[in-house]
Amino acid sequence: MVILGIDPGYAIVGYGCIDYRGGAYRVLGYGAITTPAGQPFPARLQTIYRDMDFLMKKYSPQVMSIEELFFTNNQKTGIAVAQARGVILLSAMENEVEVAEYTPLQVKQSVVGYGRAEKKQVMEMTRSLLKLREVPKPDDTADALALTICHAHASGSQLRSIRAGL
Amino acid sequence: MVILGIDPGYAIVGYGCIDYRGGAYRVLGYGAITTPAGQPFPARLQTIYRDMDFLMKKYSPQVMSIEELFFTNNQKTGIAVAQARGVILLSAMENEVEVAEYTPLQVKQSVVGYGRAEKKQVMEMTRSLLKLREVPKPDDTADALALTICHAHASGSQLRSIRAGL
Repeated sequence: MVILGIDPGYAIVGYGCIDYRGGAYRVLGYGAITTPAGQPFPARLQTIYRDMDFLMKKYSPQVMSIEELFFTNNQKTGIAVAQARGVILLSAMENEVEVAEYTPLQVKQSVVGYGRAEKKQVMEMTRSLLKLREVPKPDDTADALALTICHAHASGSQLRSIRAGL
Repeated sequence: MVILGIDPGYAIVGYGCIDYRGGAYRVLGYGAITTPAGQPFPARLQTIYRDMDFLMKKYSPQVMSIEELFFTNNQKTGIAVAQARGVILLSAMENEVEVAEYTPLQVKQSVVGYGRAEKKQVMEMTRSLLKLREVPKPDDTADALALTICHAHASGSQLRSIRAGL
């Protein structure tokens, strides 16, 4: 199953793509979509949409695993991130890619095993599980890869449940 | 100048379109895009995007006049509205339509003449200026038409400034 992980943002959208098969992970690619601060906001959304569309066509994922949004104190930033997340969800829909959403708590629990894990632990475990030499930069990219593992685990347990039910 | 006014939302997107020429308003159309509550959220975004794209092609506006977002206490709703607003901005960009943003205060000041005007006064003045028999329903549609007047006035004053400068 090809899983595209997305850490949503408007200046940086982290992405990571893995193929998860028989309990093994294969990394297909990772990186970040970035938009320049000087550009008008609607143009930044368009860049994100077009780059997302490119990734969808490049990797043909079965599912996009994306972080749920929770607002911080800075509502202005929160609004901008949410608007970017809207066009990211749209890119999945327009490419007929299923959407799975996870909270940061779910990602920590899934990748490290407990919800109070620190960011560093999540990144190190992600690196280790995906057999990468270093934790990918920027953090948004590492977060996106963690989201792919989170979905791989979630889908794995669903499969197990189905098998147990037969 | 053809102006498409948009009151952003995810359940209801109000729209109104006018042609503003020589200080006179001609209403080209108005209504609302609605999405069913039972539908998964990404699918609702897709409906909004496609309907917006339809409106862009139907009216070929020079500019989309859209309300700026300010969060209320309900952050969950705020996030959903912002995500919808993202795909609305994208539809303007993809159709090469200029985006103008106004705060509710600016709309009130522009349509009624003072920022503390009540919602009802804005709607009644909008109805009167556009020579409509009744205030359009739902409120989102009336708000969208008020946004077109706001932009017409703003562009008018810019024109006057330019003329005065010559």
